[in-house]
Amino acid sequence: MKDTPADETPQPALTYNRDSFLLPDAEAGRMARMISPLESARLGYRPAGPRVLAAKAAHVTVREGPATASRSHAQAIREEFPDLFGAPVVRFEAGTSEATRRPLTVGVVLSGGQAPGGHNVIAGLHDALVEWHADSRLLGFLGGPRGIFEPDHRELTAAEIDAYRNTGGFDMIGSGRDKIETPEQLAACRETSAALGLDGLLVIGGDDSNTNAAVLAQYFVTHGQPTAVVGAPKTIDGDLKGGGIEASFGFDTATKVYSELIGNVERDALSAKKYWHFIKLMGRSTSHVTLECALATRPNVALIGEEVRQRGWTLEQLTDRVAAAVRERAQEGRFYGVCLVPEGLIEFLPEVGALIEEINALLADGAASSSLSQRLTPQSAGVFNTLPDRIREQLLLDRDSHGNVQVSRIDTEALLIETVRRRLAGDAGYNKKFSAQHHFFGYEGRCAAPTNFDANYTAALGRVAALLIAHEKTGYVCCVGDLAAPAAEWTAGGIPLTSLMTREKRKGEWTPVIAKALVDLEEAPFGELATHRDDWCRDDAYVYPGPIQYFGPPEITERTTRTLQLETSAE
Amino acid sequence: MKDTPADETPQPALTYNRDSFLLPDAEAGRMARMISPLESARLGYRPAGPRVLAAKAAHVTVREGPATASRSHAQAIREEFPDLFGAPVVRFEAGTSEATRRPLTVGVVLSGGQAPGGHNVIAGLHDALVEWHADSRLLGFLGGPRGIFEPDHRELTAAEIDAYRNTGGFDMIGSGRDKIETPEQLAACRETSAALGLDGLLVIGGDDSNTNAAVLAQYFVTHGQPTAVVGAPKTIDGDLKGGGIEASFGFDTATKVYSELIGNVERDALSAKKYWHFIKLMGRSTSHVTLECALATRPNVALIGEEVRQRGWTLEQLTDRVAAAVRERAQEGRFYGVCLVPEGLIEFLPEVGALIEEINALLADGAASSSLSQRLTPQSAGVFNTLPDRIREQLLLDRDSHGNVQVSRIDTEALLIETVRRRLAGDAGYNKKFSAQHHFFGYEGRCAAPTNFDANYTAALGRVAALLIAHEKTGYVCCVGDLAAPAAEWTAGGIPLTSLMTREKRKGEWTPVIAKALVDLEEAPFGELATHRDDWCRDDAYVYPGPIQYFGPPEITERTTRTLQLETSAE
Repeated sequence: MKDTPADETPQPALTYNRDSFLLPDAEAGRMARMISPLESARLGYRPAGPRVLAAKAAHVTVREGPATASRSHAQAIREEFPDLFGAPVVRFEAGTSEATRRPLTVGVVLSGGQAPGGHNVIAGLHDALVEWHADSRLLGFLGGPRGIFEPDHRELTAAEIDAYRNTGGFDMIGSGRDKIETPEQLAACRETSAALGLDGLLVIGGDDSNTNAAVLAQYFVTHGQPTAVVGAPKTIDGDLKGGGIEASFGFDTATKVYSELIGNVERDALSAKKYWHFIKLMGRSTSHVTLECALATRPNVALIGEEVRQRGWTLEQLTDRVAAAVRERAQEGRFYGVCLVPEGLIEFLPEVGALIEEINALLADGAASSSLSQRLTPQSAGVFNTLPDRIREQLLLDRDSHGNVQVSRIDTEALLIETVRRRLAGDAGYNKKFSAQHHFFGYEGRCAAPTNFDANYTAALGRVAALLIAHEKTGYVCCVGDLAAPAAEWTAGGIPLTSLMTREKRKGEWTPVIAKALVDLEEAPFGELATHRDDWCRDDAYVYPGPIQYFGPPEITERTTRTLQLETSAE
Repeated sequence: MKDTPADETPQPALTYNRDSFLLPDAEAGRMARMISPLESARLGYRPAGPRVLAAKAAHVTVREGPATASRSHAQAIREEFPDLFGAPVVRFEAGTSEATRRPLTVGVVLSGGQAPGGHNVIAGLHDALVEWHADSRLLGFLGGPRGIFEPDHRELTAAEIDAYRNTGGFDMIGSGRDKIETPEQLAACRETSAALGLDGLLVIGGDDSNTNAAVLAQYFVTHGQPTAVVGAPKTIDGDLKGGGIEASFGFDTATKVYSELIGNVERDALSAKKYWHFIKLMGRSTSHVTLECALATRPNVALIGEEVRQRGWTLEQLTDRVAAAVRERAQEGRFYGVCLVPEGLIEFLPEVGALIEEINALLADGAASSSLSQRLTPQSAGVFNTLPDRIREQLLLDRDSHGNVQVSRIDTEALLIETVRRRLAGDAGYNKKFSAQHHFFGYEGRCAAPTNFDANYTAALGRVAALLIAHEKTGYVCCVGDLAAPAAEWTAGGIPLTSLMTREKRKGEWTPVIAKALVDLEEAPFGELATHRDDWCRDDAYVYPGPIQYFGPPEITERTTRTLQLETSAE
């Protein structure tokens, strides 16, 4: 199996065993793990992709667009990235490659939280590298960026790659949340790259990891290390987009898993007619996941953090809105409903956000948890005292690894249930029932096997990374475009990371960053919600998307997100 | 649309609208609801089923088996059901029906919690009734059994039926948890049946609802009401089986939804290598769901309530077992894992079960919540004091609609995390990390669209109900057998409800009931878990079943549960 030539059909030898399949363990040369029939079938799926990438890499040429700038703060960002700033957008087209066809050695690293399709980026990169030159090598850094600066890596063989095609998870090489920031870490990365003779390094990550990739790319140029550093846009949160990037990978799959579950809960609400279901969804800094799921399933209420912040709603005002929805439906005899809540909602509430910041500042100042509540400003103390006990406890006691309030652990959905319950109890005109259940869908979607869309998109991103590296383009993020069209029509190219940058204050210092794309209240996806939400609140307009399908009619298997459809069809 | 003749292809007229479909509202004659492309495709699915049911009903004959008895307490059960007891098992075979072919009027009611496939039972019943005689009528009782004794019903038209084929949920006619128990309720049901001229009544429900169907069947015979009452075995919990019933419908779909999610969480655990995930699954009285999901996904730990009770494990012993698994994996550097916990686990723990019973008795006695903890016996007070605060609060404050401790709301999974954490903290030899996340999968699976298996099985059950009623068989539960074989080879018939009965003390009185089937530690499904669980605990043997597929290779789309495979292949 290990000796399978790369140009043969990449199919691991599977052994059928009653109702599961045995997958060969590439390392140990033994049968290692039973795999499900669906995983087995998916190993054989061949991703569709842009026509230009289906051609041999030698028949692809690079077309350069005009020079780029940054999103803002051009001067400061040019100073930070003197050798990257201003680079042109590049696009791959049919033609004859001018790059020298030689064996390439490339490293790849997964950075941050899991997103469906990560393994396919690696597989696409591997396939294109081997097509470029049969002696090319792909090294996987283990456990995230730390694997580069505290060297830990493994050569990824064709057999191993084949065992992970179209699978979910990041378990092939693992991931990690370390950043490459200190001078020592940057130097160690250079040392590793030099020692391994890396022609290129692909960083698969979100906004911060791609910012990191740019820093590393500039550092390598400055220090004469000839390793091209490129990034691939990953995050289920969907907030790494814009400036030419149409979507981050994983968003399609994760929102479809959540939408399947939300649809099932909606149907349960409508059948049992007993409960309001409050469903918290992943997405701490942005509400794209909640918005997409709302467009796919039409719940009665969907709260969007960006709207809350923009309109400056307080917890009380937000509670009033949800309570009004409960009351309106109760008047029609409907004592049930579904309300979607983005994980980060609580931070979008101005007064709660201020309270959390105050607590974090006190903690950073060395305050003991027990004394915190006494040391708050009168305004924050007032907010704190209106919160239910459980939430107060979470604010005072749960800490993340940086010692901050652990926002993701706060039961925002339970908080809302409690404040709505109180609000209704205080309403003399509402003497009806309000029973609620709460849910959190997060981990269920991050490691799902990719949809056809994400499988195709990620394999294309990996191939683009190989081409960027072969053409010695450093400081680029892989770009596959026209994503709402059939995969054959997608475009392929690269966008300078600096062109996505702005500046933000981080730990008190102005730092160049790739800004997270927030839900824009002026754009089509939010517009669709805003237009219909009153109807969806009153009626039972629920849509049940059902589980992700891999076989069958293309209108089912090849559907993109509503967000992407609306964003790309907008005038 | 309303006038579609019943013998035409049952296809609702769908209007394509960008990315969803409009479904006609049968009642209002207008386009009512957008449906997803998958739901639309599934409306056109034609369930496979036993050959004998594919024949015209006129070409089916009834073969009677030998007389039956009850599971136990034959004398007492014969006294309760003098006209039903001893009836033979019946089987439908090709032949010529001896029943008079006349229009039938039949009522149908959904009873208790939702299970995938309920709508298809109704559709199968409708199809067979109309095939039997074109003038047959089907009436749906609304909101569960209450719709019979406080009459609320609607005639179900072909167009309406067509709009619900192969869908999840019970929203077509709703369901309810009322029982038909009092003499007044029984008399009212007879009145309704007489007024509507019902030839038959199909009760779609679990063990208690089927017991109710038997009571009603006997009552009708005693009082000369010529309505045949039959039951269909429904419950996602999988505990209505045995005595000829191979599976309850909904179990296949629900466990596949949960297994999809568990597989995704397993892959996340393996990728992030950070957390132990404790996953609570539905199933308060039995652990079939947990067992099936464990066989499908191979988690590190799966707790089975029946084993806990049989071995008499205390919470402390159970905690020790889970802590040992955490410790063993930590020794291999694995600080992550997945542990499945059945919802009812806490009641299977002898000392906690006794504590809950004591609290319920005190509550029934009128004790105030605030005084409860002082009035416990010393032993229960001791148990109570070892429980974490949150659980104590839930025991003292959360009440179900009967005023009892609301066991389903108790965070058993969080309780275990807490006791394991304490156990590890007290272990001087374990100074390593233990981070845990908890999940509850329940509502996500009850209203999922049925798998092909459940869609086929339920449509067959509905057809069987029509045949039983046409042949005036009352007091039977619909039986479709050989379920592990392809659907064409399934058998079809009926089993006397009395043959499934035993007696239990309910509210202090001996009552005939259909006993819940518990997980049998001597049978093959548990045996498979017991054989492999040490390996699954130590290794990462995770299997990722992925989402339910409706199209594609039959080894994926037509797979039954592992439980059914093992039970039917056992010697």
